[in-house]
Amino acid sequence: MNNELSSLVVQEIGEQGLLKILQRFCPSEIIGDDAAVIATEPGKNLVVTTDVLVENVHFSENTTSPEDVGWRAAAANLSDLAAMGAYPLGITVGLGLPGNITVSWVERLYQGMTECLQSYDTSIVGGDVVRSPIVTVAITAFGQADPYRIIRRNQAKIGDAIVVTGVHGASRAGLELLLHPEKAENLIEEEKTFLIHAHQRPKPRLDVVPILWQILDSYSQTHNGPSLLLPIAGMDSSDGFADAVVQICRASGVGAVIESTRISLPKVFDHWLTKKQALEFALYGGEDFELVLCLSKEPADELVQQLGQGAAVVGEITQGSTVVLRDPNQEFPDQILTLSQGFQHFG
Amino acid sequence: MNNELSSLVVQEIGEQGLLKILQRFCPSEIIGDDAAVIATEPGKNLVVTTDVLVENVHFSENTTSPEDVGWRAAAANLSDLAAMGAYPLGITVGLGLPGNITVSWVERLYQGMTECLQSYDTSIVGGDVVRSPIVTVAITAFGQADPYRIIRRNQAKIGDAIVVTGVHGASRAGLELLLHPEKAENLIEEEKTFLIHAHQRPKPRLDVVPILWQILDSYSQTHNGPSLLLPIAGMDSSDGFADAVVQICRASGVGAVIESTRISLPKVFDHWLTKKQALEFALYGGEDFELVLCLSKEPADELVQQLGQGAAVVGEITQGSTVVLRDPNQEFPDQILTLSQGFQHFG
Repeated sequence: MNNELSSLVVQEIGEQGLLKILQRFCPSEIIGDDAAVIATEPGKNLVVTTDVLVENVHFSENTTSPEDVGWRAAAANLSDLAAMGAYPLGITVGLGLPGNITVSWVERLYQGMTECLQSYDTSIVGGDVVRSPIVTVAITAFGQADPYRIIRRNQAKIGDAIVVTGVHGASRAGLELLLHPEKAENLIEEEKTFLIHAHQRPKPRLDVVPILWQILDSYSQTHNGPSLLLPIAGMDSSDGFADAVVQICRASGVGAVIESTRISLPKVFDHWLTKKQALEFALYGGEDFELVLCLSKEPADELVQQLGQGAAVVGEITQGSTVVLRDPNQEFPDQILTLSQGFQHFG
Repeated sequence: MNNELSSLVVQEIGEQGLLKILQRFCPSEIIGDDAAVIATEPGKNLVVTTDVLVENVHFSENTTSPEDVGWRAAAANLSDLAAMGAYPLGITVGLGLPGNITVSWVERLYQGMTECLQSYDTSIVGGDVVRSPIVTVAITAFGQADPYRIIRRNQAKIGDAIVVTGVHGASRAGLELLLHPEKAENLIEEEKTFLIHAHQRPKPRLDVVPILWQILDSYSQTHNGPSLLLPIAGMDSSDGFADAVVQICRASGVGAVIESTRISLPKVFDHWLTKKQALEFALYGGEDFELVLCLSKEPADELVQQLGQGAAVVGEITQGSTVVLRDPNQEFPDQILTLSQGFQHFG
């Protein structure tokens, strides 16, 4: 091909490098968000997202039951729909399976997916099963959204409040406990269960979408029209809170200031982790599947109040291009957040 | 789980057995066709289909270039949409890649997919790229259809004519030439190219869909309403012509009589293959991606005439449940077609 990178192997250019090359094959207007948006007819958009999970890369028998693999795979895809402001219509499941895997394992995988989907009133609508030397689970989720209310990464405006819909770091902490059970020594059973559950059964925040639109609806009625409040920017925090903020800012051509003390953490972190460790889990841990949203201050405050449970305004969109993490107590120096600390899938 | 099969491994119950178990997790009304149908709003249905391809199971470096892997993967999914009577909206691509595969290989894969999609005015709209020890390509295609014109397997009616939209066996013959080049001895270059191209670049028959609806439209205008002609039954012949007819009959609770001499074959078969070998390729070869449609005789004849190029009425839907292959020249005895000769993916 007409590209000097073509002769390299994919691990040399990394996931981001490869995605950049592959995007040349896709219509440019539908790239760069948690899901693709396709206009089907006036008044409705189809929103589509795909994830592939590979045994021993994304899950392993040691830390994850088949039910949990299924739940998390479904949750990740529903989270992408929530991040776009879409309602789910269904998912398809493409499975690669070794011939010697038990039927029970596959049933338990489907059981986990179905449990997650049923919580959100949606279901598996189709799929494919093929032979493969390694277990591979490819999920495509599709949903529907109002074209005027699609949430995108590139729509953050200077002055927007930055909202998190819940606590960050719990999933990463749960993984830590599964990998190193001895670290649970100072935790009571309830705390341990909470963190492990956060890792094994993360909840996609589809519940946020109707609340958000209802706030905007009532706000627009008292302020003569919705145009000032739209569009809303956002994505999910599947790769960590820091990744989400940096991705949104980069896509929107803006910067941000985040107050580190306002990032909601699980209460148990107070007595279990150092402040530094707690913040690292929250910033870079990933898989909490909360939403990071950028919108005007008044509806942002209203959203935070209605959601409760760790929802918070954590910062503000600014001019420029840097994302600054500021500690109002000045225990830690200002920090510039970048993507480089995020997970590089081929690294 | 509550199933005595659960303790078995998947190769013991085969693909069909596993699919039967997994269907318990899906809404029953959307199972059993080439693609799933989801009602989105009045007047429109979303049609979704997924295929997973695994290196050394579905393709190998020896017989298939990355461009051809890409083309065929896209073609198979578009063919499933055509088989449902749907128009394509786009596809998503989930890729599992070893770190040491060249960027060029991946670009060439996408090039092949894009070439196929562009012929049908559609495109790649999203996807995922992950690390995997083995190349895995998971494609989901989605399209749109008129709810009253969805083509399903279970809609064949006694007396329907059975139509093939083109020749069968060419793809299988092309594969034979790639695996055993010495067999091309008696073929001229043009014949060889035709067969290999049929295998490497099969054409999904999306072109049939608007022609079919146009015939029904004009027919219904001259016969006071479309209700007599709908619904139409059908599927694609990706797993062979025999598989398609048997699947349609089983799903519809009917039988069929097929006249073996009316199944269109590539001309080159006349002097290259025995009659028996030619018929085997056509019946069981697969991957021709033609449509097998069951509809009333008059519009069936009109469709065959408009399509040309191997389109033919090959038989009729009958009472009962057996699919009989009859040789009008009585060179071969009657044969009952079953699924057992088809491809068993975990066999």
